[in-house]
Amino acid sequence: MPLLYHTCGIIESMKKMNTTPLSGTQEFSPAVQAVFNDLKAKIAAVYRLHGFETIETPVLERLDILLAKAGGDTEKQIYRVLKTGETGETADQGLRFDHTVPLARYVVEHENELIFPFKVSQIGRNWRGERAQKGRFREFYQCDVDVIGRGTLDIAYDAEVIATLLDAYSRLKLTTPVVARISNRKIVTGFLSALDLTAQAGEIYSIIDHADKMSPEAVEQALRDLQLPNDGAKKVLQLMAIHGARAAVMEALGALNIDNEEFAAGVAELGRVLELLEADGLEGQIEANLRIVRGLDYYTGTVFEFAMPEHTEVGSLGGGGRYENLAGYFTDQQLPGVGGSIGLSRLFYLLNEYHLLAGSSAAAKAVEYAVIPMSEAQAAFALKIARKLRSDNSSATVVFAGKRLGDKLTYASKLARKAIVIGEEEVASGQYTVKQFD
Amino acid sequence: MPLLYHTCGIIESMKKMNTTPLSGTQEFSPAVQAVFNDLKAKIAAVYRLHGFETIETPVLERLDILLAKAGGDTEKQIYRVLKTGETGETADQGLRFDHTVPLARYVVEHENELIFPFKVSQIGRNWRGERAQKGRFREFYQCDVDVIGRGTLDIAYDAEVIATLLDAYSRLKLTTPVVARISNRKIVTGFLSALDLTAQAGEIYSIIDHADKMSPEAVEQALRDLQLPNDGAKKVLQLMAIHGARAAVMEALGALNIDNEEFAAGVAELGRVLELLEADGLEGQIEANLRIVRGLDYYTGTVFEFAMPEHTEVGSLGGGGRYENLAGYFTDQQLPGVGGSIGLSRLFYLLNEYHLLAGSSAAAKAVEYAVIPMSEAQAAFALKIARKLRSDNSSATVVFAGKRLGDKLTYASKLARKAIVIGEEEVASGQYTVKQFD
Repeated sequence: MPLLYHTCGIIESMKKMNTTPLSGTQEFSPAVQAVFNDLKAKIAAVYRLHGFETIETPVLERLDILLAKAGGDTEKQIYRVLKTGETGETADQGLRFDHTVPLARYVVEHENELIFPFKVSQIGRNWRGERAQKGRFREFYQCDVDVIGRGTLDIAYDAEVIATLLDAYSRLKLTTPVVARISNRKIVTGFLSALDLTAQAGEIYSIIDHADKMSPEAVEQALRDLQLPNDGAKKVLQLMAIHGARAAVMEALGALNIDNEEFAAGVAELGRVLELLEADGLEGQIEANLRIVRGLDYYTGTVFEFAMPEHTEVGSLGGGGRYENLAGYFTDQQLPGVGGSIGLSRLFYLLNEYHLLAGSSAAAKAVEYAVIPMSEAQAAFALKIARKLRSDNSSATVVFAGKRLGDKLTYASKLARKAIVIGEEEVASGQYTVKQFD
Repeated sequence: MPLLYHTCGIIESMKKMNTTPLSGTQEFSPAVQAVFNDLKAKIAAVYRLHGFETIETPVLERLDILLAKAGGDTEKQIYRVLKTGETGETADQGLRFDHTVPLARYVVEHENELIFPFKVSQIGRNWRGERAQKGRFREFYQCDVDVIGRGTLDIAYDAEVIATLLDAYSRLKLTTPVVARISNRKIVTGFLSALDLTAQAGEIYSIIDHADKMSPEAVEQALRDLQLPNDGAKKVLQLMAIHGARAAVMEALGALNIDNEEFAAGVAELGRVLELLEADGLEGQIEANLRIVRGLDYYTGTVFEFAMPEHTEVGSLGGGGRYENLAGYFTDQQLPGVGGSIGLSRLFYLLNEYHLLAGSSAAAKAVEYAVIPMSEAQAAFALKIARKLRSDNSSATVVFAGKRLGDKLTYASKLARKAIVIGEEEVASGQYTVKQFD
């Protein structure tokens, strides 16, 4: 596969301005762009096969819509966009920073045109003014699927979203397996409530959330530092240790002897999600893991994350979860949903960085046939052949560049997989041969 | 085809905020989005078949890059984007307003990775703060093809770009033909120079450019008002009247008896472009037309515009032309090019407004199969069937919503073309029937 990050592309003395793309944006050579497009198309194909409809919201959004739910760091990361022309310079619009806020607005705006549960996919760029660093971009692609219910939404859709994303990862033909690690926030919340640890829930959640980036000793110490009552530190460590296949995890959760309604509901939901994924033939690609929390505020039930067990250095590849109400800021209608996202820009960066893309077929030459008229006189015949090839769905380019045949063939060999040279003889006979470049 | 512009989508009393998209942006219901996506995919497919490589530049660009060539109205229409967070509110970045300026920067930046002539396509959104009006958008899709040479570029590529765009329009299956109207700026420039009218060239160009929106009398009057020497008004009208097929136009241009090198070069180029398009089998879709000018500054040779002769009220659908130097602001390297663009957002608006899209197949239901388990107990079997269907490349959704079978079938019928109901019997026998919704 071609290099992702190119060296400077022109003799410096000819350059009159800085032509590098802005920091935090991605820009590829055509060959790399083809690989990126191929991954994007594969993800879109899987989303379509799973019956998700496609929508595309504007990049420019009202600032009040963006700010309604943003808060905290995200609010600081929103790109504000000035009005143009004579209307002054008040920024009351911005660039969308994710697909979820525009989706919430969209569902409220278009509710009467939608069929609920609304299975929807969004693939596009979002913008966040994050500190630019390796694998973090300010302009980045996300590939989201969501299922939105009206009033209620069956827990089976949680499994459906996870299955869809797993199928998408499978389609990418990575050299290493991707696994979904799944939990349910109700289990942790119920657990803490049963142990009278609700007051410290925020700090405990934060430790669980960051545990994978800490040593086991540091995690234990952090929990002990909280001086939890009821032997809390030990019990939380017990909960955090639970992971694996459904049967074992269900047994371990039962052995905790927690008498709490929310805990029980969470265990039942997690069990059902795992059961459906097993029924769907995905047993080898899922793991229950009680360490999965996915941030603090947003998710209320199922939570999941994708990782490469053989490449723990890569970290999370994406994730998602269940939210009780998509658009509470915009409408009184209750809209529960479950969604997940593949962060394609970050994923693509990681796949290149760790050489995890199998093969490089998509990086092959862009064009199938180069049709080469030896001189102007054969241009008409060359055009006819190219048109015929295209009508058979083969890509074809007619080479008008280069003075000598050698130049034309060199050009063609860089671009195309096959060449057809058209001289006087070919025009006269109507016959031509196809040369295969190796 | 479904309505493009929806009515308000929710009971007002439940809405808590204004959820309409920003003025000047487009947002579709899923069914309309599917039609839009289908057109976009067809254009992309034709560009690929013609051997154009794909690139995607960032939406966010350095302001100095955007301003290098913008000037005039365009400069006022650039959306400036503030830096986020603590770095202050200086706008030194903006949203790209076309594909050409980022392409110029891209070609300079990536020159060493590119193969020249570089055949490149760009499909994506651009932003201009234009006054919002019917069919004019502030956020809009453009589908560009360009061929960039290094030092020189054969005139045959002008024909290739026109042929590609004509093929793209053909693929859209419109109910009315699209025709390319083609001219060459050198003809007009040489003509004016030969008649000693170069001093008034700007005003004359402007009248020619706007002639299609004026009455013949108004055009004549505007020319007379210029008080051109050498019987200029009459002669310009003579030139403007020339249009039609190649042979007739070549003869009419010859009959003007203009002895000027640039004029002769333009006539030769125009003749060659028309000849190649005829050889390519496009004779019925092209017309030479000396009124085509395409603005004042940018183009230097071939210019073309696409129109629907049977729907003159629709106006220009897109166009393009030859430019002598793509990136003169960014590099001393001479990069001649020829490019054209389909303004997809405007085109889609017009096709809907004038009902010019044949059929509505792409607007059909999004999903092929709805697989309906009668109860939870059949979910596993339903998932298996759906997975099998998807592995055969059919889209399938498992219906977990709705309590009664009737509800499930109603939901399925809105979404899918076929349904498969799975009850105890189907699970026991492993046999099921496919119900076709009409």
